Amino acid sequence: MALPDPLLAELAALLGPRLSTGAAERALHAQSESHVAAGPPDAVACPQTTAEVARIAALCAAHRVPITPWGAGTSLEGHALAVRGGLTMDFREMNRVLAVHPEDMLCVVQPGLTREELNRWLRDTGLFFPVDPGANASLGGMASTRASGTTAVRYGTMRDNVLGLEVVLAGGEVIRTGTRAPKSAAGYDLTALFVGAEGTLGLVTELTLRLHGQPEAVSAATCGFADMAAAVDCVIATIQTGLPMARIEFLDPATVAACNAYSGADLPLAPQLMVEFHGTPQGVAEQAERFGAIAADHGSTGFVWAQAQEDRNRLWKMRHNAYPAILASRPGATAIVTDVCVPISALAQAVEETRADIAASGIPGPILGHVGDGNFHAILLIDPADPAEKDLAKALATRMAERSLRLGGTITGEHGVGFGKLPLMAAEHGAAWAIMGHIKQALDPHDLMNPGKLVPQEQVR
Amino acid sequence: MALPDPLLAELAALLGPRLSTGAAERALHAQSESHVAAGPPDAVACPQTTAEVARIAALCAAHRVPITPWGAGTSLEGHALAVRGGLTMDFREMNRVLAVHPEDMLCVVQPGLTREELNRWLRDTGLFFPVDPGANASLGGMASTRASGTTAVRYGTMRDNVLGLEVVLAGGEVIRTGTRAPKSAAGYDLTALFVGAEGTLGLVTELTLRLHGQPEAVSAATCGFADMAAAVDCVIATIQTGLPMARIEFLDPATVAACNAYSGADLPLAPQLMVEFHGTPQGVAEQAERFGAIAADHGSTGFVWAQAQEDRNRLWKMRHNAYPAILASRPGATAIVTDVCVPISALAQAVEETRADIAASGIPGPILGHVGDGNFHAILLIDPADPAEKDLAKALATRMAERSLRLGGTITGEHGVGFGKLPLMAAEHGAAWAIMGHIKQALDPHDLMNPGKLVPQEQVR
Repeated sequence: MALPDPLLAELAALLGPRLSTGAAERALHAQSESHVAAGPPDAVACPQTTAEVARIAALCAAHRVPITPWGAGTSLEGHALAVRGGLTMDFREMNRVLAVHPEDMLCVVQPGLTREELNRWLRDTGLFFPVDPGANASLGGMASTRASGTTAVRYGTMRDNVLGLEVVLAGGEVIRTGTRAPKSAAGYDLTALFVGAEGTLGLVTELTLRLHGQPEAVSAATCGFADMAAAVDCVIATIQTGLPMARIEFLDPATVAACNAYSGADLPLAPQLMVEFHGTPQGVAEQAERFGAIAADHGSTGFVWAQAQEDRNRLWKMRHNAYPAILASRPGATAIVTDVCVPISALAQAVEETRADIAASGIPGPILGHVGDGNFHAILLIDPADPAEKDLAKALATRMAERSLRLGGTITGEHGVGFGKLPLMAAEHGAAWAIMGHIKQALDPHDLMNPGKLVPQEQVR
Repeated sequence: MALPDPLLAELAALLGPRLSTGAAERALHAQSESHVAAGPPDAVACPQTTAEVARIAALCAAHRVPITPWGAGTSLEGHALAVRGGLTMDFREMNRVLAVHPEDMLCVVQPGLTREELNRWLRDTGLFFPVDPGANASLGGMASTRASGTTAVRYGTMRDNVLGLEVVLAGGEVIRTGTRAPKSAAGYDLTALFVGAEGTLGLVTELTLRLHGQPEAVSAATCGFADMAAAVDCVIATIQTGLPMARIEFLDPATVAACNAYSGADLPLAPQLMVEFHGTPQGVAEQAERFGAIAADHGSTGFVWAQAQEDRNRLWKMRHNAYPAILASRPGATAIVTDVCVPISALAQAVEETRADIAASGIPGPILGHVGDGNFHAILLIDPADPAEKDLAKALATRMAERSLRLGGTITGEHGVGFGKLPLMAAEHGAAWAIMGHIKQALDPHDLMNPGKLVPQEQVR
């Protein structure tokens, strides 16, 4: 269905060429890095200010037209797809750094700014924004999916690094959450409510983010292990020792092979940990020594240090390119990328059972992840022309989530729900899922904010 | 008003002698460490299980009788007072450690357990629970007020250390939030919503808490400064340098004098910082050296180390007794204890303006606080027989909160809202306060869960 003509006229008057109903622009916003699919939105709007976002929300509310927010389109469970049509709000023109307060170690940014853009901006301040999901995602999208990634084990997730928000609610009202103080006990934690809400409660138009000091010293390494169990047990021991790892990533042999081929590396074809230490020169040396001892206890082989910045850059670029590398390892394949997060004590069992399950399926499915906080991914490579493979892969992903729940974990550590994981929410939350539905109804009674995602659909429609 | 007879009969049948309508028990639950006052509840119930809490909530809901939760009665803004009468639910008989999972560094406890009891239980595990508001508060109460305290600068507040909850909702339904995985992106962060909700959305009946490794090495010190500005500037520089302080507390000269008199100490009568370092022996030595250099840059005098455990215990016991010490410094006085939290860059200005304002009032009002995260307290000592002093002190506290807002901070860093700070919520949150009201209405439509607190009262009654 197209948008109502009066609404289109009002939006066009407000936005001019920044409103598009063209097929190309609409099709662009029906694509995602997700295995789930939806049709294109009816129109795409690119606001430049909070006032414009508020006005658009008010107009859409009056016409009962849904709004789906769009950041960088890198989410993995269909979060940014307009499953009920309506308007997609693309934040690409709201991508400014509004303020940096180095003395308070925070900054204020617009939601369309990407994390790499922010860190380029910060480069000379001595500060950085640590949350690193791999993709160059938008910060609004990262907040909305409660993103984390390689550095969360040390610096926390978006939950920990968003201090405050400006949000446009369903009717167009603008609210602010949080302050610039490091903590508060003044009422419900609305910041935490909107972080991870995937745009279903309102549109994030401004973020106050915590920054961290660029570490004085950084050191990184890779080390191989005889088998996956040894590598995972090394991670568990490291975390339990309390070593303040900045990164501790796991790559299975299939991931290593794919990365070697894609990035021209020559890591031994064994389960690998990629680790990084941040601190004072003395502190980093001590951490590295302690980690080395733990790794040796677990039979590590082929410890390779990357102390020069360019070596570390090459290492983490290779890690960040793991997804395209794995995709390229099966020519013509598409991927179902899924993640779970388990208690650290259950990590070895979760990874091993998942590995065995994937192996039995016959589908290639490299495993890698941010194992320092119990979070790992499977990238299930399927032939897009073969529906049976897709069914097999989806069943694998579902079993992986169910296994995580059995082990005391969650169906997703960082990718979020979108509509891809909607069918698994009841199993994780039980009666609490309906509470999410009540909150959604209270804040968005007409189900116009990113509808079709996260909450029980029969409750809110 | 008394509870309806049918309800009393049902509660008595359920609880036997654990239901009390006696004047003494009711009067006990009308007292608090707060400057705000309310009458006694109509009855006091002491449940022993979640099932009992759920049954009580269902019965009270059927009779539209409010429930006010009670932990240790140490909150400071009237949180646990039954301002609308009804039933006070005292959790003193739900005070067990249900499980400790050392391999996952977490534990599961009942809400009536106090933080000191938990840490005694954990002593031989190598782990500890760090959040330390001074008072030996109950963990359910600490979660509900989003408590923090001396160690939050390093280990975070209750926001960061509660991983999951079991909650009984207004109608008696039981939900669980969170998992044992270190992070999740699966839907709204209900854990964060109930932490800090002050019991207005439901009754916390179980908590999953993060634990931390007992540090290998600990070192503490006091150091004096020529004036308050120098001490506060030293704090700001320390935090901005990124030193991972475990504690960094500020005491003004009046607080020092009171502590000396009460605890038999002999700290120099100058603004003091009390600091603590946690880490490896080498790490602690390095931190201490770096802090020493920063303190020297700010003209510190009289650096006194407390390296032996018994010296540290004496030091922190003195700090924890600062409140009774200050109370004792003006015989017969009662106190209005208030807290604010500002961006670290505004700390010096906030403390100095507050000091000057208190000095001009003529009321004694020592200032102390967890300055590492911008959080400080004034303990305003008033003659309970002199209403004019109380009015003066309340006006001082209000101006302190308003000053905090002007400087980008919050009206309370850790004490919470209760009904003492209700009149200040609109100024901090603006339109967002009504969103809290909408959430309250959605989860507690008859306003039975700790009514009269936190949310806009005209909206929810």
